[in-house]
Amino acid sequence: MIRHTVVFRLKHAPGSEAEHDFLQAACALANIEGVQKFECLRQVSAKNPYTFGLSMEFADAASYAFYSDHPDHSAFVQQRWIPEVEEFMEIDYEPTGGL
Amino acid sequence: MIRHTVVFRLKHAPGSEAEHDFLQAACALANIEGVQKFECLRQVSAKNPYTFGLSMEFADAASYAFYSDHPDHSAFVQQRWIPEVEEFMEIDYEPTGGL
Repeated sequence: MIRHTVVFRLKHAPGSEAEHDFLQAACALANIEGVQKFECLRQVSAKNPYTFGLSMEFADAASYAFYSDHPDHSAFVQQRWIPEVEEFMEIDYEPTGGL
Repeated sequence: MIRHTVVFRLKHAPGSEAEHDFLQAACALANIEGVQKFECLRQVSAKNPYTFGLSMEFADAASYAFYSDHPDHSAFVQQRWIPEVEEFMEIDYEPTGGL
């Protein structure tokens, strides 16, 4: 299992229609084959600069690569993510395996 | 639901006994009342400086506060976290609620 997460802050005003529209578009990434447990989340800690997060799981590295290379993902990154996201950090998790 | 996560890097050498011992101590936080879905994870993305993560869920803000204020949590922070963690970031999530 690989859990891919990204925490981010948009250029849009909080509560705006543009914010809502971006999040709706992000949710469509859940439809790419191999994406499991997709979540769109609100980031609520004051200890970092981010306001939203996406989380999803893949069975293995091949499924993750299929997602990353998928034309729908590439189009979202180019057409929505790069122009509309102010700041972000990607964090990926795997089980520690018996630690 | 509130998902409390923290991503971090230890001062200890990767694979060391000290690293293993720290992670074992961190896992004991799962025993505090109200902690759900506790996970100790390996952070595997090259796009941030962290190497491990903890993730847990709370039913509500009161359960989260009970955990934060619990003597076992306070002792862990003072005796293990502050001396042994090089760098960290806390990220907390809630559902977006119908976005």
